Amino acid sequence: MTRLVSYAEAPPEVRAVFDDIMATRGVPDVNNFWKALAVHPPTLARTWESLKAVMAPGALDPLTKEMLYLAASAAAGCTYCVASHTAAAKAKGMTEAMHGELLAVIGMAAETNRLAEALRVPVDEAFG
Amino acid sequence: MTRLVSYAEAPPEVRAVFDDIMATRGVPDVNNFWKALAVHPPTLARTWESLKAVMAPGALDPLTKEMLYLAASAAAGCTYCVASHTAAAKAKGMTEAMHGELLAVIGMAAETNRLAEALRVPVDEAFG
Amino acid sequence: MTRLVSYAEAPPEVRAVFDDIMATRGVPDVNNFWKALAVHPPTLARTWESLKAVMAPGALDPLTKEMLYLAASAAAGCTYCVASHTAAAKAKGMTEAMHGELLAVIGMAAETNRLAEALRVPVDEAFG
Amino acid sequence: MTRLVSYAEAPPEVRAVFDDIMATRGVPDVNNFWKALAVHPPTLARTWESLKAVMAPGALDPLTKEMLYLAASAAAGCTYCVASHTAAAKAKGMTEAMHGELLAVIGMAAETNRLAEALRVPVDEAFG
Amino acid sequence: MTRLVSYAEAPPEVRAVFDDIMATRGVPDVNNFWKALAVHPPTLARTWESLKAVMAPGALDPLTKEMLYLAASAAAGCTYCVASHTAAAKAKGMTEAMHGELLAVIGMAAETNRLAEALRVPVDEAFG
Amino acid sequence: MTRLVSYAEAPPEVRAVFDDIMATRGVPDVNNFWKALAVHPPTLARTWESLKAVMAPGALDPLTKEMLYLAASAAAGCTYCVASHTAAAKAKGMTEAMHGELLAVIGMAAETNRLAEALRVPVDEAFG
Repeated sequence: MTRLVSYAEAPPEVRAVFDDIMATRGVPDVNNFWKALAVHPPTLARTWESLKAVMAPGALDPLTKEMLYLAASAAAGCTYCVASHTAAAKAKGMTEAMHGELLAVIGMAAETNRLAEALRVPVDEAFG
Repeated sequence: MTRLVSYAEAPPEVRAVFDDIMATRGVPDVNNFWKALAVHPPTLARTWESLKAVMAPGALDPLTKEMLYLAASAAAGCTYCVASHTAAAKAKGMTEAMHGELLAVIGMAAETNRLAEALRVPVDEAFG
Repeated sequence: MTRLVSYAEAPPEVRAVFDDIMATRGVPDVNNFWKALAVHPPTLARTWESLKAVMAPGALDPLTKEMLYLAASAAAGCTYCVASHTAAAKAKGMTEAMHGELLAVIGMAAETNRLAEALRVPVDEAFG
Repeated sequence: MTRLVSYAEAPPEVRAVFDDIMATRGVPDVNNFWKALAVHPPTLARTWESLKAVMAPGALDPLTKEMLYLAASAAAGCTYCVASHTAAAKAKGMTEAMHGELLAVIGMAAETNRLAEALRVPVDEAFG
Repeated sequence: MTRLVSYAEAPPEVRAVFDDIMATRGVPDVNNFWKALAVHPPTLARTWESLKAVMAPGALDPLTKEMLYLAASAAAGCTYCVASHTAAAKAKGMTEAMHGELLAVIGMAAETNRLAEALRVPVDEAFG
Repeated sequence: MTRLVSYAEAPPEVRAVFDDIMATRGVPDVNNFWKALAVHPPTLARTWESLKAVMAPGALDPLTKEMLYLAASAAAGCTYCVASHTAAAKAKGMTEAMHGELLAVIGMAAETNRLAEALRVPVDEAFG
């Protein structure tokens, strides 16, 4: 099985990242993703710093970012990521109706993506 | 090369779909995707009806839907779709700053998607 | 650009494979795929031997195999492969109506594939 | 866990779709896919209508369509879909020998798809 | 469930392949992958012959080949393959530090792959 | 077309990244990837910092890392990335024989990845 590094057994540089994740998100523990990534502390630290920067509020609000993350994860077929970002999006306010419409867009995109490739459609000049 | 069916040469059932696309979107011609799909009129009609229903305003606004479509298309690696939905999202109000943040989310999702799979992270019970 | 090895410049072990491809298929030259793969003669020879065995008539007829190859290639988003196997399927008897229905299945599969993953649907016991 | 909507708890518009699936397929219950999709009734109804139209007999027979669906699903790496369409193809007459040859084509397509992309093979003019 | 063909129940042509796998690898049994593939003996034999040839020492050493296999499998999102090739790479000498760096490369590649596609970056002339 | 930001027109924060890329790699200009990513300076800076850290020599040497990057990019089907990392790997010492074997591993991985998924092979207990 995948080794998950718990806070109790984590070395100081891992605990520092776990502490920052818990403080930033206001949660009592980190998800399995971070416990698994802790087997390589430099990748853990770098990935968390990047994620924190990318997901901070900006021109797009946090819920929109979370739904975009979910759409990309579903299109890439990552089961864990679909589970974690569905939960995160709901926690940020995604209603069941919004989730349903997001699913519909994901499905439709998958269909037209493959059709466009199967037909080798040339890019329109108007797209710039 | 891919055969593109122009309005001039299109049979009536294809023209009817093209007319509805142009009227719904307020544009003077349809994109190459529809001209290519017109080689199979039943698939053209069905795909357009589905897309029109999915992209109509609902619990999510049209710009958000368009950006979700773009995120899913980029994650699936469809060049044509990235081009068409980037253009569509800009037409619906996606600024350069929003586009930059969307790209950052897409990139970050791809990275963590693969890490989660490469580590075979078990889904947290808390995700429900 | 990709280096393509022509028959004229090919070493004997590559010519032997090219000769067998041309003889098996009854064509005067090999496709670019084989010319590109010829940069590594062992991979060229092994790939051709495998392909020849896999595509030979068996419980499935050659046209069905070719359409399955096309469906898998389209689902994987390989532009070159879509082009080559669409041409090959047409040469083996795929009509425009059959092509249209194949496209419809590919699109539908892509849509339901992503929906099944985005919903994390548990496998039915009845599937065995 | 994924919420599965049973017939007993389903609202009328979901029951209508479930009824049509069971009648069309001659089965006593619907698969988990439909029970999961029922969380968003409009997407459930639209997806079923599309699937029913796409999979109806036409220029391609139902078994061939089912095997194409399976090939596309396997190429896309959808576990649930592989399970459901393998079961469906067997129910429509796919023998073990046909299944074995289909697997061989899927594997071969995956190999040559990636080789074609890794070599960036230019599309042959002859492919049209 | 997937049917796994054990040595005891295997026909002679399957046992011959199993014997060669066990002898080549110096192991007392074959992995589930081979037991599952044994449902189609010709594909079992062909796949093993190819794999044995491809993974033999050559210009690249066995550990490097195994890590490349793991990187490709992770990028393709194959859970079983990630598990088997992680185990195989460890058996061939991949340390935890090497594994960590391999994971980092996989993650980074996924991120820049999607960014390059989402931006439709034209290939530099200097790449040849 | 994709907008590429040249050094001459780049704002100071972009020039700083470009300068570091050129100095780190000892090259007179940056690749199109970086010029395209410069439309969003924060993503440009973050991506470069991550890439620099990930690709630095460590438990794995630079050539091995570059080949792993290439394997992952080929498996993900990113044309631009295949072109850029093939060029980079050659610059770091990948010979034609090594490239050929790498291609063979990529192809073989793709084939067995899909077979493992199409057969839904259960993970062996021995893999840990």
